[in-house]
Amino acid sequence: MTHKVVKLKINYKTLEEFKRFKQYGRQELSMLEDLEANMIENDSDSPFYGVYFGDRLVARMSLYQIDAKFDRYFNPPQDYLELWKLEVLPEYQQKGYGRALVEFAKSQGLPIKTNGRINSSDFWTTMGFATATYEVERDRGENPFVWFPDGVTEQVHDE
Amino acid sequence: MTHKVVKLKINYKTLEEFKRFKQYGRQELSMLEDLEANMIENDSDSPFYGVYFGDRLVARMSLYQIDAKFDRYFNPPQDYLELWKLEVLPEYQQKGYGRALVEFAKSQGLPIKTNGRINSSDFWTTMGFATATYEVERDRGENPFVWFPDGVTEQVHDE
Repeated sequence: MTHKVVKLKINYKTLEEFKRFKQYGRQELSMLEDLEANMIENDSDSPFYGVYFGDRLVARMSLYQIDAKFDRYFNPPQDYLELWKLEVLPEYQQKGYGRALVEFAKSQGLPIKTNGRINSSDFWTTMGFATATYEVERDRGENPFVWFPDGVTEQVHDE
Repeated sequence: MTHKVVKLKINYKTLEEFKRFKQYGRQELSMLEDLEANMIENDSDSPFYGVYFGDRLVARMSLYQIDAKFDRYFNPPQDYLELWKLEVLPEYQQKGYGRALVEFAKSQGLPIKTNGRINSSDFWTTMGFATATYEVERDRGENPFVWFPDGVTEQVHDE
């Protein structure tokens, strides 16, 4: 079964769906406030992508393109994607939704960096990601996993 | 009761204590590997601070000083502290250990930024922190809380 990944628009329905996800935080509240205050329009673009099961949003992630000048992970330095808030609702886990989202991110053709949750190492390894060498001043407690397209390697820094 | 906050040195005892904390991840593994490979010396400095109850490490946090040129949170832009991995072992919670660590951070005289866990808002507000205005390109899914010493305000960015 293929899961169709769609870019999510910011509207009241999407924001209501977001409340079911554990990682509901400042980002979601901020979008809701901006919508309520008419600071953004209904159906504005968001950095979120999701998968629906029928009418229900069951998986989501956020993707943001980082400019090459801020790239401290990849060699040669280049634009890359930062992936965060990857989450599948509990009753829909183990059905390929997370994989579909990550495959979608990989299909964009850019390197990817994510901050893996504790014990998520098996998932990211299965998805072809590698553990980035930990650097305290860059990673500050994160657990960075990176995905290299062909021809891209890890950026190495002197201590 | 006052809790004494101490800077933690990287050694096998500390790294063994760290295994009891939920947020044990790449950072801790990296320190252990560096120690085992003799890439760092026993009792090297770490960015961690902790509180002991008797011989047992019961609370910890990481503090890292960010250079003013990277400051996107405070006005005027200045060196500030990033606080992460604040954690108190379950059986020692609600006894002021977390507060002692945060008060220690505040006593350094620099502004502080942290990424609060979901539902940690009450704790940070009680500690005098404010919610930073969420900016997707800066915060990327974090829940930033900030503490302003006298004379410091939030840095405002145009959309």
